[in-house]
Amino acid sequence: MRRLQLLTLVLFITFLSAYAQKKELTLKQAVLGQRREFGATTLRNLTWRPESTAYSYIKDNSLVETDVKTKKEAIILSLDDINSQISTKGVAAAKDFPSIIWLSNNLIRFNAESSYIIYDVKANSVASIISFDKNALNDDISPDNQKVAYTIDNNLYVVSTNGKSIQITNDSNRGIVNGQSVHRNEFGIKGGVFWSPKSNYIAFYRMDETMVTDYPLVDISTRIATVKNVKYPMAGMKSHEVTLGVYNTNSGETTFIKTGEPKEQYLTNVAWSPDEKSIYIAVLNREQNLLKLNQYNAVTGDFVKTLFEEKSDKYVEPLEPMDFLSTNPNQFIWQSRRDGWNHVYLYNIDGTLAKQITKGNWDITRVIGFDKQDKKLYYLSTQQNPLERHMYCMDIKKGEETKLTSNHGTHNPIIATEQGLFLDIFSSIEVPNQIDLYSTKGKLIINILKSDNPYKDYSMSKLEMVTLKTSDQKFDLYARIIKPANFDPNKKYPVVVYVYGGPHSQLVTDDWMGGARLWEYYMANKGYILFTLDNRGTSNRGFEFENVIHRNLSVNEIDDQMVGVEYLKSLPFVDAGRIGVHGWSYGGFMTVSMMLKKADVFKVGVAGGPVIDWKFYEVMYGERYMDTPDENPEGYKNADLKNFVFNLKGKLLIIHDDMDNTVVPQHSFTFLKECIKNNVQLDYFTYPQHEHNVSGKERVHLIDKIIQYFDEHL
Amino acid sequence: MRRLQLLTLVLFITFLSAYAQKKELTLKQAVLGQRREFGATTLRNLTWRPESTAYSYIKDNSLVETDVKTKKEAIILSLDDINSQISTKGVAAAKDFPSIIWLSNNLIRFNAESSYIIYDVKANSVASIISFDKNALNDDISPDNQKVAYTIDNNLYVVSTNGKSIQITNDSNRGIVNGQSVHRNEFGIKGGVFWSPKSNYIAFYRMDETMVTDYPLVDISTRIATVKNVKYPMAGMKSHEVTLGVYNTNSGETTFIKTGEPKEQYLTNVAWSPDEKSIYIAVLNREQNLLKLNQYNAVTGDFVKTLFEEKSDKYVEPLEPMDFLSTNPNQFIWQSRRDGWNHVYLYNIDGTLAKQITKGNWDITRVIGFDKQDKKLYYLSTQQNPLERHMYCMDIKKGEETKLTSNHGTHNPIIATEQGLFLDIFSSIEVPNQIDLYSTKGKLIINILKSDNPYKDYSMSKLEMVTLKTSDQKFDLYARIIKPANFDPNKKYPVVVYVYGGPHSQLVTDDWMGGARLWEYYMANKGYILFTLDNRGTSNRGFEFENVIHRNLSVNEIDDQMVGVEYLKSLPFVDAGRIGVHGWSYGGFMTVSMMLKKADVFKVGVAGGPVIDWKFYEVMYGERYMDTPDENPEGYKNADLKNFVFNLKGKLLIIHDDMDNTVVPQHSFTFLKECIKNNVQLDYFTYPQHEHNVSGKERVHLIDKIIQYFDEHL
Repeated sequence: MRRLQLLTLVLFITFLSAYAQKKELTLKQAVLGQRREFGATTLRNLTWRPESTAYSYIKDNSLVETDVKTKKEAIILSLDDINSQISTKGVAAAKDFPSIIWLSNNLIRFNAESSYIIYDVKANSVASIISFDKNALNDDISPDNQKVAYTIDNNLYVVSTNGKSIQITNDSNRGIVNGQSVHRNEFGIKGGVFWSPKSNYIAFYRMDETMVTDYPLVDISTRIATVKNVKYPMAGMKSHEVTLGVYNTNSGETTFIKTGEPKEQYLTNVAWSPDEKSIYIAVLNREQNLLKLNQYNAVTGDFVKTLFEEKSDKYVEPLEPMDFLSTNPNQFIWQSRRDGWNHVYLYNIDGTLAKQITKGNWDITRVIGFDKQDKKLYYLSTQQNPLERHMYCMDIKKGEETKLTSNHGTHNPIIATEQGLFLDIFSSIEVPNQIDLYSTKGKLIINILKSDNPYKDYSMSKLEMVTLKTSDQKFDLYARIIKPANFDPNKKYPVVVYVYGGPHSQLVTDDWMGGARLWEYYMANKGYILFTLDNRGTSNRGFEFENVIHRNLSVNEIDDQMVGVEYLKSLPFVDAGRIGVHGWSYGGFMTVSMMLKKADVFKVGVAGGPVIDWKFYEVMYGERYMDTPDENPEGYKNADLKNFVFNLKGKLLIIHDDMDNTVVPQHSFTFLKECIKNNVQLDYFTYPQHEHNVSGKERVHLIDKIIQYFDEHL
Repeated sequence: MRRLQLLTLVLFITFLSAYAQKKELTLKQAVLGQRREFGATTLRNLTWRPESTAYSYIKDNSLVETDVKTKKEAIILSLDDINSQISTKGVAAAKDFPSIIWLSNNLIRFNAESSYIIYDVKANSVASIISFDKNALNDDISPDNQKVAYTIDNNLYVVSTNGKSIQITNDSNRGIVNGQSVHRNEFGIKGGVFWSPKSNYIAFYRMDETMVTDYPLVDISTRIATVKNVKYPMAGMKSHEVTLGVYNTNSGETTFIKTGEPKEQYLTNVAWSPDEKSIYIAVLNREQNLLKLNQYNAVTGDFVKTLFEEKSDKYVEPLEPMDFLSTNPNQFIWQSRRDGWNHVYLYNIDGTLAKQITKGNWDITRVIGFDKQDKKLYYLSTQQNPLERHMYCMDIKKGEETKLTSNHGTHNPIIATEQGLFLDIFSSIEVPNQIDLYSTKGKLIINILKSDNPYKDYSMSKLEMVTLKTSDQKFDLYARIIKPANFDPNKKYPVVVYVYGGPHSQLVTDDWMGGARLWEYYMANKGYILFTLDNRGTSNRGFEFENVIHRNLSVNEIDDQMVGVEYLKSLPFVDAGRIGVHGWSYGGFMTVSMMLKKADVFKVGVAGGPVIDWKFYEVMYGERYMDTPDENPEGYKNADLKNFVFNLKGKLLIIHDDMDNTVVPQHSFTFLKECIKNNVQLDYFTYPQHEHNVSGKERVHLIDKIIQYFDEHL
């Protein structure tokens, strides 16, 4: 008897300690903790120090460096150092060491308050400072670090180190917007100011949207609610008109580039010639099927010539500006998907093609740059596997390509070509974060950092990657499946398909967490299978994989999601009668589409900020994929989910933020109206004062609501 | 064996026929059928024919009459008659016989299209016709039937029988509104035009709301949504300014009555002197605690005198204009709650009180009128019982009161004083509709109509009336309880409390259906107890019963509702753990209040268009009960439901229409925001393009949603 008691006790203690070892994530941790509390260990602001063999990073509120030769870590500058110096210049002390950029071996640049500060790390003193208005936005410093362009409201200003501020534009009509991003950030546009290489000129966008209809959003935070109109051109409707001004910082004069008619065209990927004499614009027609790479005289604004054209019977989507070779200003590289994959082309300044530098059934996802002699091009691509990102080096003359990274996963290297070194930062589904020092010949020199598993004390659900095939067997489809920590293959689990499915996205990746968000792991642990598949239409899989959705949204995407569902149904542990779907934005469109068009498959859906009817979506993105409602009535009709409300069988919750200026609330309201008119029941919720999706602390409420909805109904 | 088979068959047939006898209401019938499909039989447009002993009504698309002496029914006029005549005047044929008004023994008046038609029933021809603009609203015909005043947009017009139209006001600013109801229809205001007795003048309201803030509602029915601003003065904020113009139809000139400062005052209960020389206005200050009954010169607009004042430390709420005696233009009657109950006072034109005509602890709910000699006053009151309405006659000189109606219930008589007769139209919880002919001495002459039970073929849940006491034993509280048709006292039922609870309401009445809506009966039959109680603050129970809520909303109302809940809990068949609550508008405010302030009592709530924070409610109604936020910070704080979101335990669904211009959507949105901020879960729904509540066919969806919510969660 005593022995049995002892054994029981031992077993009990074992059980207890096993139990105690693994904590459960709270919902709050799951929603807010992925990057903060559970962020993998890394080196912040890791970068090479110029003209040295040291890499620098921020550690314990100091800028430190490690020389790859001595392997010794040394403090360059402390937060106290910079604070004591900038305070003498009237700049308030920083709380944390700011992110820096190296300008030379002894100069760094950082932001503090509304100032750019050039700091001499050897002298430990401020080298120069440019301060600008506290209300300024879109601040952009000149290449010579002597001037800053910025906007206040809708006008553009410039200020120099002498503190003198000049107003460049003077538009009182709020419908005229200067110096800011245009075309709703499509076509790779991120900002509205383009400094010339020698800092003599500022090219800037001027967008006239006075003729664009307003969408009225309502701000309920004022004592009596107030309307906040946003200019929102809907597909097929009058769009804004964009021009490009060139401000001469020496003369103070502004010339407008003669981009001509039709005024509704897209001025994308603005670039300066190295000599500042020319400006190049990738001019795309509103139909988005004809791109002209045009050269203009930067001084007179006159059109010079079209270097070349790109056409497509689907769409042309320029995303990266031309990049001149530093050794030869008569050549530049250009990225294009014209052969079906995103590749790099070398062009002569007269518009003739010198060479297609890369080629193959894979996409370049980032051009890192040339070596100093412009002989070798470094880039990331999907060549190894669409889930991974590896760095390659192409010897341009020889056409020889070398793969420089080896561990499977997603690499994001920082290169020092002159030193022949790179820091390989990477993660994979097994590796939270790892940093290795390599030679640019691909030889591992030393491991610098290897992050612990941030979840090692937690009971974590399990990630697996799955490869399927489109129903026509033409394409691989990548998916991930997350199972609860206590997964029992003899049980039957409900499944939630988390979907996005639209262009410019890839949810399934070979990096830490597999591209998933922590709440998906949390939810799986509550007894769900979480499943995500990247269908046709999504990114980094070549042009055809994406453009099959053209004029025809929610057809091929759903077909591919159904491949995922069939796979799920084939799994013995999946309860085929309990499959749900959730997504936001395009994923909301997918969710509602699947609930209506595959009503027998999905029992519960939660759609956030869904597109319901593409005629309510904006011109730039909408017309690229759908043309206009007049040009494509059938496509619009088949993708208008209001036409399918009769089909609804399952429980559908739609969530739409009241200040959503991306997918405007009219989508969901007209859908509700149509459901109500046809006596179709559904659920609805809104997050007041939020835009597209819910961020910040209130996201906990959102994820709670979504999970509760599946808990109650799936 | 054969006998047993026969018996079984008989039993089966009995069962079948019993089953077949009683049908179940469908949801659609329950929501849309109460007045149409299940309306009690009645005589449409029942009225006395002047200078006769006949009463007329519309039957089979004809105007018919029955003489009380001969008891014979005769057709006066058919639809074909009037259609053949009006068509010759260019007026389109009517589909149904229009409702008529008798002008004399042979003349009737009715509307057809945009025309008033005076018709001679003896000659069977159109006597005269006044047509007005098809876009006209607020049309109002003069006492001499020769002119019609109407509005188009915000301006006032008049047209006479000669077809000539004159524009009286000419305001291009849409913030100036002429000839329409003002002060948001409070203070008994129903329209904005007041014809003088001899038809020489038109007094009209002019409301300047240019200084009032706009509330932006969003119309999603346009291709791109558009803002619909409504002028909405919120409690304590700048309100509109109203004046009264007097248009002389002979001279064409307009004089404005000099109502003076402060401009933010309420011009209520406008009345003309019989000689057209004076206009009387019950001028109430914005604080709503001082009423002045002012006389003005109708020609010059000058102030003449204040006849008398009424003050209150709570509020004064004038609802009925003065009414001059026809036999003595120097006397008028005035209704007031100054002694705690609504009674009739006889005043001399100099402002001195001649006599309080009625007195007692009951309210007059409608003054029917005098006899021809102004010796007897007929009225309805609550004297018998607050649930009932009976007609009384007061001999003014003698002070003797006679009760003229006898059957318990709600009487709505039509009187012919000269003939000494009245038609007693009444219903009660047992009587769907009954019409009896009585002498004005209270003697029953003959029964004219007795409606069948419209639900006799349906399985109907059962109504019972309950009388309780306020917790201080001071007041009776009336309630109704509806039990399922198959009620089993040994079972435990969940309860849904349907509540309104605000001023100007009485939900529990002794009339057909007991004041309940058919969907409550339908819902009860699904296995619920439906319960409704009229708490303090509601109407027809005297001033104190109502005004105890002053500055203190959602305190006494909830106390009384809890008396109802305690009663429910005492019932053996009530499941005390499954009590829900539902209401709209003030009832939405009550619902949310009860869910938060009595969180242990109510498991599920559905609140429609709820007031959440009285500072978002309008000036007229809001300040009457709450004063301004500055004057009553504690009261506003205690009634601001955002301050109690922490308490929520049960399931709460809020429904708020997006175009609600009564309780603006800001109420619910700020509540959602506060819940989300504090991580409190609740549900929300909206009916796009609806205003305050949902009417029409889409109401079926609404009631379905409400019932489903209780089905799922209670």
